[in-house]
Amino acid sequence: MSQGIDPRTGEPVGPEVPDSSAEGVSEAVARAQECAQWLADLPHTRRAGLLRALATALREDESALVRLADAETGLGEPRLTGELARTAAQLDMFADVLDDGAFCEAVIDHADPRAVPPHTDLRRVLAPLGPVAVFAASNFPFAFSVAGGDTASALAAGCPVVVKAHPSHPGLSVRIAELLADALAGAGAPRGVLAVVHGHEAGELLVTDPRITAVGFTGSTRGGRALFDLACSRPDPIPFYGELGSINPVVVTEAALERRGDEIAAGLAGSFTLGAGQFCTKPGAVFVPAGRGFGDQVAEAVSAAEAAPLLNARIRDGYVTGVAALGDVPGVKTLLSARGGAGYCVRPAVLAVDAQVFTEQADVLAEECFGPCTLIVEYAGADELAAALAVLPGSLTGSLHAEPTEPGAAGLLAALRRRVGRVIFNGWPTGVAVTWSQHHGGPWPSTTVPLHTSVGATAVRRFLRPVTYQDVPGELLPAALREDNPLGIPRRVDGVLIGGRSQG
Amino acid sequence: MSQGIDPRTGEPVGPEVPDSSAEGVSEAVARAQECAQWLADLPHTRRAGLLRALATALREDESALVRLADAETGLGEPRLTGELARTAAQLDMFADVLDDGAFCEAVIDHADPRAVPPHTDLRRVLAPLGPVAVFAASNFPFAFSVAGGDTASALAAGCPVVVKAHPSHPGLSVRIAELLADALAGAGAPRGVLAVVHGHEAGELLVTDPRITAVGFTGSTRGGRALFDLACSRPDPIPFYGELGSINPVVVTEAALERRGDEIAAGLAGSFTLGAGQFCTKPGAVFVPAGRGFGDQVAEAVSAAEAAPLLNARIRDGYVTGVAALGDVPGVKTLLSARGGAGYCVRPAVLAVDAQVFTEQADVLAEECFGPCTLIVEYAGADELAAALAVLPGSLTGSLHAEPTEPGAAGLLAALRRRVGRVIFNGWPTGVAVTWSQHHGGPWPSTTVPLHTSVGATAVRRFLRPVTYQDVPGELLPAALREDNPLGIPRRVDGVLIGGRSQG
Repeated sequence: MSQGIDPRTGEPVGPEVPDSSAEGVSEAVARAQECAQWLADLPHTRRAGLLRALATALREDESALVRLADAETGLGEPRLTGELARTAAQLDMFADVLDDGAFCEAVIDHADPRAVPPHTDLRRVLAPLGPVAVFAASNFPFAFSVAGGDTASALAAGCPVVVKAHPSHPGLSVRIAELLADALAGAGAPRGVLAVVHGHEAGELLVTDPRITAVGFTGSTRGGRALFDLACSRPDPIPFYGELGSINPVVVTEAALERRGDEIAAGLAGSFTLGAGQFCTKPGAVFVPAGRGFGDQVAEAVSAAEAAPLLNARIRDGYVTGVAALGDVPGVKTLLSARGGAGYCVRPAVLAVDAQVFTEQADVLAEECFGPCTLIVEYAGADELAAALAVLPGSLTGSLHAEPTEPGAAGLLAALRRRVGRVIFNGWPTGVAVTWSQHHGGPWPSTTVPLHTSVGATAVRRFLRPVTYQDVPGELLPAALREDNPLGIPRRVDGVLIGGRSQG
Repeated sequence: MSQGIDPRTGEPVGPEVPDSSAEGVSEAVARAQECAQWLADLPHTRRAGLLRALATALREDESALVRLADAETGLGEPRLTGELARTAAQLDMFADVLDDGAFCEAVIDHADPRAVPPHTDLRRVLAPLGPVAVFAASNFPFAFSVAGGDTASALAAGCPVVVKAHPSHPGLSVRIAELLADALAGAGAPRGVLAVVHGHEAGELLVTDPRITAVGFTGSTRGGRALFDLACSRPDPIPFYGELGSINPVVVTEAALERRGDEIAAGLAGSFTLGAGQFCTKPGAVFVPAGRGFGDQVAEAVSAAEAAPLLNARIRDGYVTGVAALGDVPGVKTLLSARGGAGYCVRPAVLAVDAQVFTEQADVLAEECFGPCTLIVEYAGADELAAALAVLPGSLTGSLHAEPTEPGAAGLLAALRRRVGRVIFNGWPTGVAVTWSQHHGGPWPSTTVPLHTSVGATAVRRFLRPVTYQDVPGELLPAALREDNPLGIPRRVDGVLIGGRSQG
């Protein structure tokens, strides 16, 4: 059983939601499997229509959904209104990706007896994997939950989805599941395209169900690793796309600090406390030149901040004990300690350490601490900085504050690039745009598979696999591969890309 | 220590090759890591030049290499000459992929304050993962070994490679390693771009080395699974691209059997005995209408075949005991038994079973038996066939022999498509063309990751990960993402594909 708790008060809110039974989970997967072929065969443009119907359903219920989400998450109505708009826009973007058609990567090679080795007619296209399990996150009750990016991209790929709801917003999850089910039925989809299940056991049943073909997950490193291990230990292992912990390093050069120190301190204060520090892209380690009082400046900037609610008791406890544990490491100074408030409310914390200590104890100091805290790492010279960057674990993002023309900028950017999925110049990592070019992923532990993204157009690729058709007659080919290109999509034919706008 | 054995005689041939020491393996990985940035930074066209230099080196030494390979594998000079040509052509193809430039998937989204949510300048490109370990296979001493597809695609992606040589052709592996090292040095590459190590322990050391970022493997399900588990159990799991066992189902319809029964029997006889049945795409289960004597016809066609050598004692023993074990399953008839000869030579075997028995005992009967044997599965009606196809494990290929206009053809093709990576119409799966459209992969156990291929242009993608650059000034961007497109490659800009030939 799960029930929402208002994090501002710690009091229960909304309905009690029972855990799904094993039979309930199995039925949801069975229905997903039954409609998998229907969804796979649906023309791209009609699949796009389903996604747009979901976006419309979210927008039409905006104010009620935002109120519900706010009661269970305490994230505040302005932020949640923006998040809902972004979630709807994300569904629309995947509809655009389907209309564009390049996502299915149609390739045609006509028979060529002179090739080495010679070959007959070969045509390749991406096809959906089958039913997908999605684990919702607590920190984005819209954008990384029931109707979030994993669900949207799996449906766009043509895969039915069973979502394991997050217990921190069960009431909202139930309501969105109803809304989406109605919208799908209204658009002519069979039951089974999307289902939501509840409870820890339901999640494990999904990952080990032989009919589930892939998993999307956003959450903690510990929880994600356990499910990753479960997926890998199946008799038939399946891809597990987990977004786990990320420290999101920021590097500030001497020149940047000199020219824009106040602005950078203010920017950092805003970024690491945004959403009470509950962003997977929160800057958790900030490398600055030693002896400039940057840490004190940041602590000063947030010292008057009001206490803000964390999402649940586990996250609040993890934050308070995590900050205390960091502060206990010899060499770490606590510039501003984590203080609690009513409900799950806490205040920001700032810690500082020398780069040499950070490098030596990176296994402890470079671990993500979820919530509004950041660690200022003071470096004395380029070598100390390079040594510290070399021991960083993989992260979703890395940010560089530098002057574009300083000689060291290229090297620092390259050092960050090796450890992260997105590099940011003179900006902050929080806030993840939903675009063709977005990459929200990175080396372990930030994600379990560094090749993939959970945000942006290419997120669909996680749920697609190639199929090549050899000498298959036209009438038996999928539309994307027919000679006359009835879908009008971009393709590569005999090695030449066809369908783009010409260069220059 | 490993030494080649002439499979025709069982006698040792060529030099004794010592196993690599743990220090030797570590040094090879260290050198790979040292040159990773050099290789990543090398312009695409220069990386293409390296690959072409390797192709040229192989071609220039053709006759000596083929002789060496034949002595250790017994595959015969004509086949090996063809395989070497194909291996060189594969290196050239990846060079073409680099020259084309689309493989790096450059995407640019200019800042858009009106987007939901608004975004600044974002640019995405694929970047190499880092040092890659490649496990060579026994059955293709050129095409899936030291200079094979995994090595070629990893180098094309910009990743240094450490190959774990296959102990069935150690002399050839040493010679090719020397050749390639000379060619790379001649082309200006630092030591470390490509190394070869030997011995079982060396393989495990590679998979668990923290500097190795991905693994390519071709081999048995048992060996592949053990290494897959090792890769997944690392503190930082890495992608493991394994090609394991595949049964490669073939379906023959009533109409096709009636019109072309003799031709199909002859085709099958040729396909399952090609290379002594040591192709990963060998047709291992053939579904035919019951009661037509198709199995006897196939057995008759191969009954006079000369004994052909298998690659090594392990494969020979596995073949002989595997065929006997299949024949012992109640309901299975042995139409032609596996008979041995000199050295590791064996003769083809043909077995037959009713579809109902096959369906009930698919866990035993649908497992790959490596070598020149095939199982004829007789079905009585569409329902029995459908039930049997539904329990098939994942395979690299599935073939359908049918009349294009028969009403059931589309459904059978779809049923095969769900279980395989390549569907073939009125043809045979053996022989894998090296093209843009090729897909050599499939659901577990045929591969460990169904999204990827080990043959064809998109094989490079296994060793690349996306990186997004946010607001990075032009002078600090990689060439592929600069505003003026100095590489002249196809890109997606603000949602529009640019650079292909126009449609129609």
